[in-house]
Amino acid sequence: MKKVLNSTDQVVEEMLDGFVTAHADSVKRIPDTTVIARKDAPVSGKVGLVSGGGSGHEPAHGGYVGKGMLDAAVVGEVFTSPTPDQVLEGIKATDSGSGVLLIIKNYTGDVMNFDMAAELAEAEGITVEKVIVNDDVAVEDSTFTTGRRGIAGTVFVHKIAGAIAESGASLAEVKAAAEKVIKNVRSMGVALESCTVPAAGKPSFTLKEDEVEIGIGIHGEPGIERVPLQSANEITSTLVAKILADIDYTNSEVAVLVNGMGATPEMELFIVHRQVAKMLGEKGINIYKTWVGEYMTSLEMTGFSISLLKLDDQLKEALDGQSDAIAFRL
Amino acid sequence: MKKVLNSTDQVVEEMLDGFVTAHADSVKRIPDTTVIARKDAPVSGKVGLVSGGGSGHEPAHGGYVGKGMLDAAVVGEVFTSPTPDQVLEGIKATDSGSGVLLIIKNYTGDVMNFDMAAELAEAEGITVEKVIVNDDVAVEDSTFTTGRRGIAGTVFVHKIAGAIAESGASLAEVKAAAEKVIKNVRSMGVALESCTVPAAGKPSFTLKEDEVEIGIGIHGEPGIERVPLQSANEITSTLVAKILADIDYTNSEVAVLVNGMGATPEMELFIVHRQVAKMLGEKGINIYKTWVGEYMTSLEMTGFSISLLKLDDQLKEALDGQSDAIAFRL
Repeated sequence: MKKVLNSTDQVVEEMLDGFVTAHADSVKRIPDTTVIARKDAPVSGKVGLVSGGGSGHEPAHGGYVGKGMLDAAVVGEVFTSPTPDQVLEGIKATDSGSGVLLIIKNYTGDVMNFDMAAELAEAEGITVEKVIVNDDVAVEDSTFTTGRRGIAGTVFVHKIAGAIAESGASLAEVKAAAEKVIKNVRSMGVALESCTVPAAGKPSFTLKEDEVEIGIGIHGEPGIERVPLQSANEITSTLVAKILADIDYTNSEVAVLVNGMGATPEMELFIVHRQVAKMLGEKGINIYKTWVGEYMTSLEMTGFSISLLKLDDQLKEALDGQSDAIAFRL
Repeated sequence: MKKVLNSTDQVVEEMLDGFVTAHADSVKRIPDTTVIARKDAPVSGKVGLVSGGGSGHEPAHGGYVGKGMLDAAVVGEVFTSPTPDQVLEGIKATDSGSGVLLIIKNYTGDVMNFDMAAELAEAEGITVEKVIVNDDVAVEDSTFTTGRRGIAGTVFVHKIAGAIAESGASLAEVKAAAEKVIKNVRSMGVALESCTVPAAGKPSFTLKEDEVEIGIGIHGEPGIERVPLQSANEITSTLVAKILADIDYTNSEVAVLVNGMGATPEMELFIVHRQVAKMLGEKGINIYKTWVGEYMTSLEMTGFSISLLKLDDQLKEALDGQSDAIAFRL
């Protein structure tokens, strides 16, 4: 394993330290926790937004903490859910009396631990609601997941719920907006090469030299099939077709996210986007806004995912709202 | 070679197409050229700022085109300087009568071709000035370079010259600000694994399984030495010590850029930043602002570079100025 580390069991601790040191003007770490919060949290009169999950997906989720997005990100060990007590700390750090919405990616560990934290918080008198993101159309049920997995489309949930919360909406309204995004966002990914979890010291899976895995999860969970390496246009077409088959995008406007998994050059992501745009154009689907880059990674996995969010006027306005988050500045 | 491509000889063309499609609200491609320009270029009454170089360093340089940074980026083939006629197109697309400043990274090909373009532009009556960035303290003279190489510190030149140009400064004033940045910025990098240039089809260089190269260039040019893999703190200390030995940073304020070379997880970059901050703190050097992420890559090379810019009040104000560039939004 060839990585820039000091100690495999200190990676998360040292990353958090480096992160808050780098961005101390906008975020803070809640002492003795793995919670990254807005510097001004809790924000008076505003619904608190808390997300998080295992680390290794940077810039998710700490990079999405900031005015107009998340109030806190709770960080677990690499590819491991944060514990309920840490999530509880995130809730407590962000509740200003207006309640807290938990944005959870659909993995069994996350769902269980965030649920338990919600119960603990309710017992302390904090109103907590939650939404579960399951945008990955690749497979039903998977390693670590019952139902569909939550992947890069989660970033749109953070952004839009964040804007709605910032506008002073109630907890019920913020939750409804988040659920609307979840209902309208679909994603799918592909991997060319595995990543290596530091504590494991060896690649999470192995692909042959000319093989890619269509529908991979962000922890290397199995996808739909392993096929010989195809052209960028062919792979992209497979992913986009599967997404478009899932809900009706006819005559709609969409936001597009072409997300690098960690080690894919931006050059290749733009080549992918070119084909996404071509396919959507041919189907009469209008692109409202596009993001291309690394938003939900899997350490140094090589590959990418595509997310499409079907928009209405409310979602467009929220998507355009100001965000001060480090990794999603608008 | 396992890459997401359609054709190795179309990568730049398709990337440019994907880039302008993704960001059509803020940039445009000058027809029949490899020039990415601000959508509103040329901007009346403003000095034009043109940079560029070989592709493969994304988000450099197209990602730095936008209000408050570059007016145009001229893109060459992978790791290959753009031709003089393309640079000339970039100059012509951005000159509003106030003259154009070329920001050139110190590689023989770039210097020669941008020089030639400047002469051609002058012959057409456009006033052109240029600055050459040589921030890499690793080695004097190298493959493709006489003197020191220009690497990630170049991004600070774009940002600060961009802010000064946006303020309505004259060509001489913008050039003076860019030169002040060049005088005060130093960088150095390390590689763990090589990248593969699509047209070459094989890695640019080979390192042993436990070996890293200290002082590598962004095209894989040789560094100072190959050493066994060390801890993040040890590698970081080596790079920072060499940077600090080059100019006097005593009692100064600095901007820090920890730049991923392409395939290094953000997690590791924050672990590096942690040590950078610790070392600077011990020396009484105050960090004014920090950037951690991928700013000047080498395709999917694994490794990182550190840049330190010594600041004064003018540089701080310019660093803080608004930027609409896709990859450097402030």
